Amino acid sequence: MELDTIAAISTPMGEGAIAIVRLSGDKAIDIADKIYKGSKSLKQVDSHTIHYGHLTNPTTGETVEEVMVSVMKGPKTFTREDVVEINCHGGLVSVNRVLQLVLSNGAKLAEPGEFTKRAFLNGRIDLSQAEAVMDLIRAKTDRAMNVALGQMEGRLSRLIRKLRQEILETLAHVEVNIDYPEYDDVEEMTHKMFIEKAASVKKELEHLLQTSQQGKILREGLSTVIIGRPNVGKSSLLNSLVHENKAIVTDIPGTTRDVIEEYVNVRGVPLRLLDTAGIRETEDIVERIGVERSRAVLREADLILLVLNYSDELTDEDLNLFKAVEGMDVIVIVNKTDLPRKIDLERVREAAKQHKVVTTSLLEDQGVDDLEEAISSLFFAGSLEAGDMTYVSNSRHIALLGQAKQAIEDAIDAIEMGTPIDLVQIDFTRAWELLGEIIGDSVHESLIDQLFSQFCLGK
Amino acid sequence: MELDTIAAISTPMGEGAIAIVRLSGDKAIDIADKIYKGSKSLKQVDSHTIHYGHLTNPTTGETVEEVMVSVMKGPKTFTREDVVEINCHGGLVSVNRVLQLVLSNGAKLAEPGEFTKRAFLNGRIDLSQAEAVMDLIRAKTDRAMNVALGQMEGRLSRLIRKLRQEILETLAHVEVNIDYPEYDDVEEMTHKMFIEKAASVKKELEHLLQTSQQGKILREGLSTVIIGRPNVGKSSLLNSLVHENKAIVTDIPGTTRDVIEEYVNVRGVPLRLLDTAGIRETEDIVERIGVERSRAVLREADLILLVLNYSDELTDEDLNLFKAVEGMDVIVIVNKTDLPRKIDLERVREAAKQHKVVTTSLLEDQGVDDLEEAISSLFFAGSLEAGDMTYVSNSRHIALLGQAKQAIEDAIDAIEMGTPIDLVQIDFTRAWELLGEIIGDSVHESLIDQLFSQFCLGK
Repeated sequence: MELDTIAAISTPMGEGAIAIVRLSGDKAIDIADKIYKGSKSLKQVDSHTIHYGHLTNPTTGETVEEVMVSVMKGPKTFTREDVVEINCHGGLVSVNRVLQLVLSNGAKLAEPGEFTKRAFLNGRIDLSQAEAVMDLIRAKTDRAMNVALGQMEGRLSRLIRKLRQEILETLAHVEVNIDYPEYDDVEEMTHKMFIEKAASVKKELEHLLQTSQQGKILREGLSTVIIGRPNVGKSSLLNSLVHENKAIVTDIPGTTRDVIEEYVNVRGVPLRLLDTAGIRETEDIVERIGVERSRAVLREADLILLVLNYSDELTDEDLNLFKAVEGMDVIVIVNKTDLPRKIDLERVREAAKQHKVVTTSLLEDQGVDDLEEAISSLFFAGSLEAGDMTYVSNSRHIALLGQAKQAIEDAIDAIEMGTPIDLVQIDFTRAWELLGEIIGDSVHESLIDQLFSQFCLGK
Repeated sequence: MELDTIAAISTPMGEGAIAIVRLSGDKAIDIADKIYKGSKSLKQVDSHTIHYGHLTNPTTGETVEEVMVSVMKGPKTFTREDVVEINCHGGLVSVNRVLQLVLSNGAKLAEPGEFTKRAFLNGRIDLSQAEAVMDLIRAKTDRAMNVALGQMEGRLSRLIRKLRQEILETLAHVEVNIDYPEYDDVEEMTHKMFIEKAASVKKELEHLLQTSQQGKILREGLSTVIIGRPNVGKSSLLNSLVHENKAIVTDIPGTTRDVIEEYVNVRGVPLRLLDTAGIRETEDIVERIGVERSRAVLREADLILLVLNYSDELTDEDLNLFKAVEGMDVIVIVNKTDLPRKIDLERVREAAKQHKVVTTSLLEDQGVDDLEEAISSLFFAGSLEAGDMTYVSNSRHIALLGQAKQAIEDAIDAIEMGTPIDLVQIDFTRAWELLGEIIGDSVHESLIDQLFSQFCLGK
């Protein structure tokens, strides 16, 4: 299949020193050469070399930009096609006019994710690796990036391939047994092997799924809500978390400039502060806590920071807050230890039940370390330190793993209920197909289009 | 002088496909090689070549990123030093950890503009060219970019050097005449030559200064204020200008995310819409027009768009607006031609005096072309079409050109008043020095530091 030569701006939009317009496709070098003036024709240069020169409009002869052009010939490129990267000055006008020049000389504007899609279609990477590329770009913490990097390098893919291979071998084995029933006990043996293999595959799937909660947190951040009566120090807590740690403010790429997420990186745990502005403004959240809508907001949170006042008695309002967050992940913060104690800490611990209780004086910057430690240990009980672990973080992968596990369990049930072996095969084959969807071996084109459309432009 | 090896993120901050960490200096290749794992050592590769590989932390052995590394050996580089560009994934975490790795392995974090400063200090470009680099990045329109590009390629520098050469030759000639007064009429001849040369230089300086108003507009945008009574269609005009044309919204790089400028590109004229939000909200600007503060805001504007209501009579309020903007550049817009006419157009033309009057129906999208034509022709009376003209756009250059012109005029006055020739020489020398400051031949280090500190990081 002959694909168009595509082009897009591959650096973030904004003012910077350098911006890149990237081309990929059979005509990439031809198109670049048409508009390039330098000491040599780009058609004559070696692969993976860089050339200084000027872009000129071939129609008007006008100089458009001063550039460095990188020529990389396929298949040793990101897309496996010929790739040309034009490094120009990083202004909005500059990079846009370079893009326009390239488009008016034969390139097609790339769709979001189209470069990575080609890397996938041309077989350089599989689907889970492609998805990791975007996770890597969006990573909010070091740990999240390590997970994405591992996935991009094919760590998850290798595991999935191994599992699929096991399933396939089992199916083949069964086929042989059915076709050549040389022994009397062939059915019993087949059932036994099936059960063994299924149990082993199921165990590995469960192990992968166990990592998924942490993986998702790493990838998407921990939705965090701070609650407490007025004047207990909610704003101070928010400020303390933001200032003590590096706040990560992200512009969501795309057309809208309005959506801004605020992340705080607490010892590798990305906290996504829900409706921060709202918290800042609505000191009256306690009064509204009875309202169903407020409860719904709370229910969306992965983590509740419940703040109490050390210098005041525990009130019914406080106890209502405990009720409102029952069953959730909560850390109780008793703030204002700089003031004389009035609160009954025994009662607090009673109300907190299994939740961790931390005392702080945010005013005097006391106890914040303990709080951060509590957050970190709540979600990463040490296990994440092991850098070589495979984490499943992508919701699509998690769902497929869950379905594959279900299919395996169905197969086990079926065998145990004495279902004919060819029906059991169907469940087993289904698990094989579901796992294939993770790496893109068996997916619909529409899914692929949809997945890559979530990418940023130029990737 | 041995300079440190510097490093910085050279692409805009944000999420994108690719980000670049750039290194420059003697140790650039050494440092990159220490953290790079690929098929070859970067010390052994040819200049201007690109290499795929991974960055690893040499202390922990941990993989940090998948990268493409460009190696460019001086002096054929942006800074004339060895330059290494590390292309990594364009996420915030990714690019920051690559930068950290580079810094912890011997590079120093570059100050804003330090790469360009080195290009200047190492003699690759002069000061006006360096300044053009930043203008180019910040350019809001094609035309502004062309001016910056021309200046970066040395167009202004060549003109300035030519003028300085003329002044220097004149001074040398005078010196010779003074030292060897072989003829009786030497003094008269010297005076005559001085006057002739001074007049010629002055004429060229005036010519350059004439371009400066347009140059400044191109560079900084035209501060534009829309005024008019309530309900004449001010918001519609604003929306029409923004939607008909490509709005250029720019984030000012730096720590604050709050400062956002809104530009609209009207046929190559960048309109900087002053206090747009304010205009949107304060329909009551007419009532406040008497207030001194409001007048002050108006006075800051380069262009006033005064909107009248076609379907209403001309009121005293309207006439007061005309008074408030007397002596400024005004375009009068008679809006709502879709409704029956009540306004006396003769009286409008009278009140408008020399100002252009345009009739529009913004509701029906009528007359916007005429308005745009009026804006364009008001500021660029055709002359800007000539792409090969040199425009002076930088306030620093404009000030220096003005001072140089003054020095030349002083010299002319002095000669005409019969001042001794050695005193005249002082003024002439001063003009030569002032012009030298434009290209950086005679500037203080503190000025250089200050100029480059206005650059963005990584340039």
